[in-house]
Amino acid sequence: MKFVKTPVKGMCDMLPADMRLREQILGMIKETYARYGFMQIETPAMEHIENLTSRQGGDNEKLIFQVMKRGAELKRAMEAGKGELADSGLRYDLTVPLARYYANHKEQLPAPFKAFQTGNVWRADNPQKGRFRQFTQCDIDILGDETNLAEIELVTATADMLQKIFAQVHISDFTIHINDRQILRGAALQAGFSEEDIAAVLISLDKFDKIGLEGIRGELLENGYAREAVDQYLALYGQLSQGVSCREFCKDIDSAYLAPSVVEGLEEIVACVTPMLGEGVKICFDPTLVRGMGYYTGPIFEISMDGYGFSIAGGGRYDKMIGKFSGQEVCASGFSIGFERIITILKDHQQESSKVGAPNVAFLLDKRVSLEKKQEIFLAARKLREAGTTVTIQPMRKNVKRQVELLEAEGFCDFQKIYGD
Amino acid sequence: MKFVKTPVKGMCDMLPADMRLREQILGMIKETYARYGFMQIETPAMEHIENLTSRQGGDNEKLIFQVMKRGAELKRAMEAGKGELADSGLRYDLTVPLARYYANHKEQLPAPFKAFQTGNVWRADNPQKGRFRQFTQCDIDILGDETNLAEIELVTATADMLQKIFAQVHISDFTIHINDRQILRGAALQAGFSEEDIAAVLISLDKFDKIGLEGIRGELLENGYAREAVDQYLALYGQLSQGVSCREFCKDIDSAYLAPSVVEGLEEIVACVTPMLGEGVKICFDPTLVRGMGYYTGPIFEISMDGYGFSIAGGGRYDKMIGKFSGQEVCASGFSIGFERIITILKDHQQESSKVGAPNVAFLLDKRVSLEKKQEIFLAARKLREAGTTVTIQPMRKNVKRQVELLEAEGFCDFQKIYGD
Repeated sequence: MKFVKTPVKGMCDMLPADMRLREQILGMIKETYARYGFMQIETPAMEHIENLTSRQGGDNEKLIFQVMKRGAELKRAMEAGKGELADSGLRYDLTVPLARYYANHKEQLPAPFKAFQTGNVWRADNPQKGRFRQFTQCDIDILGDETNLAEIELVTATADMLQKIFAQVHISDFTIHINDRQILRGAALQAGFSEEDIAAVLISLDKFDKIGLEGIRGELLENGYAREAVDQYLALYGQLSQGVSCREFCKDIDSAYLAPSVVEGLEEIVACVTPMLGEGVKICFDPTLVRGMGYYTGPIFEISMDGYGFSIAGGGRYDKMIGKFSGQEVCASGFSIGFERIITILKDHQQESSKVGAPNVAFLLDKRVSLEKKQEIFLAARKLREAGTTVTIQPMRKNVKRQVELLEAEGFCDFQKIYGD
Repeated sequence: MKFVKTPVKGMCDMLPADMRLREQILGMIKETYARYGFMQIETPAMEHIENLTSRQGGDNEKLIFQVMKRGAELKRAMEAGKGELADSGLRYDLTVPLARYYANHKEQLPAPFKAFQTGNVWRADNPQKGRFRQFTQCDIDILGDETNLAEIELVTATADMLQKIFAQVHISDFTIHINDRQILRGAALQAGFSEEDIAAVLISLDKFDKIGLEGIRGELLENGYAREAVDQYLALYGQLSQGVSCREFCKDIDSAYLAPSVVEGLEEIVACVTPMLGEGVKICFDPTLVRGMGYYTGPIFEISMDGYGFSIAGGGRYDKMIGKFSGQEVCASGFSIGFERIITILKDHQQESSKVGAPNVAFLLDKRVSLEKKQEIFLAARKLREAGTTVTIQPMRKNVKRQVELLEAEGFCDFQKIYGD
């Protein structure tokens, strides 16, 4: 029989030590978000193929794992020719399922609805270091809140949660970057770009960290934009020193291109979030923050950490997206944390000392132990377990040294060897 | 755009109240099994199609959701003709992945290895009440322990866990049925059936609860078995009154058909488990317990509850199965609990009083609330959250009555309405 021992390409088996870390972190995430009134929900791993290919998923739509039709339907589809063999697919994010879920259950849910989701998503990406074809996402979203209370709650809750998690490995520094799609739009219009150019211009601006201002200039000129607009645009971004305030950056943008309420709203978010942050955590206006997905409409945010080239969380307001799905407009804002990335950072900093600390007990029983003795041991184990101790009862192996070593690696440290008479 | 609001056929969206119950129960399961030294592991949702169709999954293999190949490979498969369009599938149980996992990671794992798994499995079954196409399984397995310490640990841990869970809805009664495949075999041989007949005879015996002894007699005769063997077989089962001991039932089975150590082993399990059980919980030898899957080789067990026609947990020893997968023989014994069935029972008995009890607080903010006031409220909320209270901060809706009602339904009970000046 052909049997394959390794997992499917690009996917991972989790060893006990992996799971202990993941479960502990997931527990902290769940607890923190629950405190903020986010309610956990869950959707199936599979979605209708129509929903997954509705153009809200961007490039992820190219990476769908398609699930084949079955039985008579598959037969019909095969005979009819190729193209419609799949009727569903594995979800590539938690946002498309959330949009469907909200459309389906809106009447039963509080308004605004604060959703927390965690679950696996699947993308048939080319596997590479730290990028997998099955990975865990953790999203919080607030649906039906058009005010910036939503953003303040999202950012505060996520910062609180990350502070608690990273405190375990003595990291306290990270930065919350914040910007607004309306400001990005206003700045581009102010420089002389047209409404239709904005998407493409932002794709270039998004590369600021990689190619710098001059790289962006080259790319925009190469793409055929007028030198005057390009120069004016980059002058706006060129003058900024680190730590420019939103108000300062926006002062020369005409109110026809940018409503003053947008600037006020963003300053209010910063003013409310700042006093909530622990030492080492900063929130700063970042005029070059773009966020890839085209569906954002208002405030956008991202969390970075020194020494890591990737963001560990990101999100923003997407007031139009759910409406496109459900036909009914619903304002929404969400924050997605990169669970796998957080695990990567924690593993980088994990010390020996962070091992399970409890005095886990292993009873190793020789073959000749009597029934009475066994009954005694099981009852003793019950007492220990009731008191919160982890206890395992196992036959003693010939190579007891190796048996003990492997149990030690999993956190056991008290070994009771029981011999028969 | 064609958009489907409902989940994929046969699968469920989980509302916040569903999730609260599921998470709470899952937490109790994880905690209890951890105390017994079971280590949580996880495998990907997808498995190689070869592994899923290796004939260990029984009828479940007919219910596989197949995942299509992608890109060039799919194109090649399409051109080559039908039959090999899928390269993987969604797992239909947690046992096949466990066998693969153990074959892959054996060297790094303790021996014996006590595994705990929970996760979704998928079966393209005909949806019906209480049966879904995606559902959660919780399995514990002990690999590499050939002694009955494994069964004692499995049964005790599961009974302990179920007692804790059902105590919440004031149920304390359930029954653990236990039998042994070797006894089933011995009884059939003793009656005069041949080794080859056993599988088919057991299929009939398995229907005892539904069709009774006379039904079984009819079926066996209809299937062409000798009246003498059938009569002798059913005489054995007919004489049993409820509560027959294993030793009593087996006393007339020749030791050539049934090794005395099997009976001793089973009696030892009962003797060790009995004193560990809480009031209302029984363990009893049940000579008609068969368990459907053909791969069991030793002790088998099942947990039932009065008033429910389904078992809530089941398992047994399957010493040959992993070997068939990995080529290397590994003894194994496991217990799988029916998570969805437990949820069904809890929902049946759930009282109003079992709602979240904490005084969850909702701040509802009028539009005119000043920035200073908002900052104050966010800081006050932080204090409450740090003290363990769930707090949500939301804009006040025009229909505040409805807003409060929906939040009350989710466990909020303290409403702070904040108005601007």
